[in-house]
Amino acid sequence: MIENVDLSKKLDKEEYEKAMPELQLRMGELQRQARDLNIPVIIVFEGWDASGKGELINRLIHSLDPRGFKVYPVTAPNEEEKMRPFLWRFWIKTPAKGRISIFEKSWYRRMLSENMNIDLKKEDPMELLGDIKQFEKLNYFERDLYNNGNIIIKFFLHISKEEQKKRFDDLEKTPLTSWIISKVDWKVHRHYDKYLGLIDDFLELTDTDHAPWTIVEANNKKYATVKIYRTIISMMEKRIKEFNAEDIKALKANKQNVNISEYDPGKDPILNSIDLNKRLAENDYKQKLKLCQGIIKELQYKTYRKKLPIIVVFEGWDAAGKGGNIKRFTEEMDPRAYEVIPVSAPDGIEKNHHYLWRFWKEFPKKGYTTIFDRSWYGRVLVERVEGLTPPEEWKRAYSEINEMEETITDDGIILIKYWLQIDRDVQLQRFKERETDPAKQWKITEEDWRNRSKWDDYNAAIEEMLYRTDTKYAPWHIIESNDKYYSRIRTMETFIKTVEKAL
Amino acid sequence: MIENVDLSKKLDKEEYEKAMPELQLRMGELQRQARDLNIPVIIVFEGWDASGKGELINRLIHSLDPRGFKVYPVTAPNEEEKMRPFLWRFWIKTPAKGRISIFEKSWYRRMLSENMNIDLKKEDPMELLGDIKQFEKLNYFERDLYNNGNIIIKFFLHISKEEQKKRFDDLEKTPLTSWIISKVDWKVHRHYDKYLGLIDDFLELTDTDHAPWTIVEANNKKYATVKIYRTIISMMEKRIKEFNAEDIKALKANKQNVNISEYDPGKDPILNSIDLNKRLAENDYKQKLKLCQGIIKELQYKTYRKKLPIIVVFEGWDAAGKGGNIKRFTEEMDPRAYEVIPVSAPDGIEKNHHYLWRFWKEFPKKGYTTIFDRSWYGRVLVERVEGLTPPEEWKRAYSEINEMEETITDDGIILIKYWLQIDRDVQLQRFKERETDPAKQWKITEEDWRNRSKWDDYNAAIEEMLYRTDTKYAPWHIIESNDKYYSRIRTMETFIKTVEKAL
Repeated sequence: MIENVDLSKKLDKEEYEKAMPELQLRMGELQRQARDLNIPVIIVFEGWDASGKGELINRLIHSLDPRGFKVYPVTAPNEEEKMRPFLWRFWIKTPAKGRISIFEKSWYRRMLSENMNIDLKKEDPMELLGDIKQFEKLNYFERDLYNNGNIIIKFFLHISKEEQKKRFDDLEKTPLTSWIISKVDWKVHRHYDKYLGLIDDFLELTDTDHAPWTIVEANNKKYATVKIYRTIISMMEKRIKEFNAEDIKALKANKQNVNISEYDPGKDPILNSIDLNKRLAENDYKQKLKLCQGIIKELQYKTYRKKLPIIVVFEGWDAAGKGGNIKRFTEEMDPRAYEVIPVSAPDGIEKNHHYLWRFWKEFPKKGYTTIFDRSWYGRVLVERVEGLTPPEEWKRAYSEINEMEETITDDGIILIKYWLQIDRDVQLQRFKERETDPAKQWKITEEDWRNRSKWDDYNAAIEEMLYRTDTKYAPWHIIESNDKYYSRIRTMETFIKTVEKAL
Repeated sequence: MIENVDLSKKLDKEEYEKAMPELQLRMGELQRQARDLNIPVIIVFEGWDASGKGELINRLIHSLDPRGFKVYPVTAPNEEEKMRPFLWRFWIKTPAKGRISIFEKSWYRRMLSENMNIDLKKEDPMELLGDIKQFEKLNYFERDLYNNGNIIIKFFLHISKEEQKKRFDDLEKTPLTSWIISKVDWKVHRHYDKYLGLIDDFLELTDTDHAPWTIVEANNKKYATVKIYRTIISMMEKRIKEFNAEDIKALKANKQNVNISEYDPGKDPILNSIDLNKRLAENDYKQKLKLCQGIIKELQYKTYRKKLPIIVVFEGWDAAGKGGNIKRFTEEMDPRAYEVIPVSAPDGIEKNHHYLWRFWKEFPKKGYTTIFDRSWYGRVLVERVEGLTPPEEWKRAYSEINEMEETITDDGIILIKYWLQIDRDVQLQRFKERETDPAKQWKITEEDWRNRSKWDDYNAAIEEMLYRTDTKYAPWHIIESNDKYYSRIRTMETFIKTVEKAL
């Protein structure tokens, strides 16, 4: 896409000054419209060294209301960022509804800078771009954001070899700026032509309908500025038009064509085969509890030293014993290296982001353990059953969740998912206990009773969830929980087995 | 305070198991009450190495609802934290209303760990504790939070030399934990007695009514657990009682005794002596603008390399030209190293924190520039005039703001504060222009007209602000802004002069 671009394009001062005022005004208007329509916008600037990213971003933001955007320069990951899954630092910077995130370099940094700069001798260009699986994951990332309403606008600033040399020379001329250009920069410059081919491959691989690239001829900054403005304006106008379209229903209907495999709810229900009569005597329990807690404490030392990050997900019926399980589970752990994240309905800020955003934020650093008391599976459980999320969206969530889990487990996270299963009678009995025990009354609400009345709907949602999201990299562990003792020990033993295997 | 503590105190298993259930229940209740009353709670755990901080924190949090607290282990500052003012990483972790922040080590880390571990040979113990000015600032920090409604509970876990040796030996016995104990730890252990004296001094210096220390005899963990529970419970009960007290009015009246120096509003009004007729011709302006923008661009390179952090505050009347000033100011700057923070009314999360919290969050990294379009001075301007904040609180804010500015400038931040001054006629004229210009209509609201009608009240607030917060370390620059050209150049020239002096 880039090799035949005409880099001689330019604008003179007069043309530029004629075009800009209108574009600047329009940009401001569109920002306010997107804000009012709650549309989040992501703008990515990639490009050759010295292609003018900083300057062009500055020219763009001067038409924007600073209350509505933020510029994120992407450099090498810092200590904290290196400790998290690769996409963590980008996920947490995705814009809230109505806001604009501008990335100077981006999640493609690894491919465009890190990998390429290391070794040009490799014959296979794809090797230079890095693991092909990474491309897929970045594509999921962009597609998820797009599906959630984000406009994604990606610019590649293209300059010629001669122009780059000129700019490098200019920067090197004065001590004020000479430190900016490094030996590596010059090395890349010398191999400009080889890189050009690589970048071409790269752009084609990452150019999608939902997040297309715009190549900006940036030898001439005036031309580049106008092209950037026009591109953003036209993409925002298009999306705003969609939002305002009279046939918005048709659009929505269109969206319902979620690509989802067939599933027969009646066939082989998973939970039916679970033997809920499993029990553990109190004496056995007490012994095993001490033993397991001791081992978990030791494992925590080991995973901390080995820098293994762990996520434990507790899902289960109301009153299935999640809280009690977590309490015993963490009783001997060191609070400096584990954290419990209780998940309830999203708050204001969380609602203004992609539904996975609030979980990405909490994903653990290397060596740390994060325990989720409920999780992202709310999307296909409570949100589905209570009608909080339209069917096309929760149906899409199965693959989004699977892809996310694959992404983070590939990044080295150990992910352990529990479903705590109880039957209706046990739930009723526990609800009643809670109502009469003054120490537990606050734990039971109207909502619990309401949820209970929808047992069958929840059961169907759980079955489909277990069927669709039980994967090689993140299998479900169904824990028989009618007996609390049995449940707790089973959870711990499963954890111990999984972590020991990973060590 | 610590030298005569009786470390032989202990509880046996029976006593412990008898005491705990009730304490645990009560702790849960109080957490829910504090949540409902919007009371933020800060709990600090300091203590000897191996005094059991982790374990005791874990025993505490198992009685708390995880939705309401967070544990913050404090280690050596990471790259990002080193780039910010010292207190930044603590300010951003202060709890929202109704929540609990638990610090494992704290802002005292520097004194208790870093300074002490370096060099025991110094004869003057105070030198080991570090700069006495730091004590003052940490005291401001705690007092500000207390005044804003926080309960601050500080524990020092005390163990004997023998007990520490025993615990170190136990940890070293197995490879699983032997890495925890370092040479430095043993060195500190050998000089236990000398440290004991130092810690005693330290505790006395940092023990205040608003944030008292509780020394916990921690040789026996059961005793320590119960003491920690009882202390927290009694401090929370006390504060909750205050909130519920019938004579709450009396309490409030009491609070009004803000220690504030006398001020005669009529005497020597500062703004009267400003010559608003200063003007700059268009040609002059254009020339100087280019020149100044060029110098500012160069200065940005220099301050980036020298790692100087800069804060620029723009305050001024509505339509005084803050936005236009900032636009020209930043026109040639690199957006990767500066940021404009527009300040309007605090949102939900911001309102749930100390009023300075949202500004602390934004304080720049070394080498970066943060420009505030309005600032923390809203506390003594709009919040005062519109009655959004009671008098005792905005009156207290003058010294809180001065102290904060002293704290961050001492940490190396260059702070430049502008007041853009215009007269009433010019404001009226600009409001009218905005109303008729389609590109600017969105900038003028009902509120602007309302504010204008209170010109005299605002004027009084501004005068007092300029009088009370014009300090050596953070002086006000009053910018004559009836003429926009003059104002913009004056702002830039002031910036250039100040930064060049600091370089």
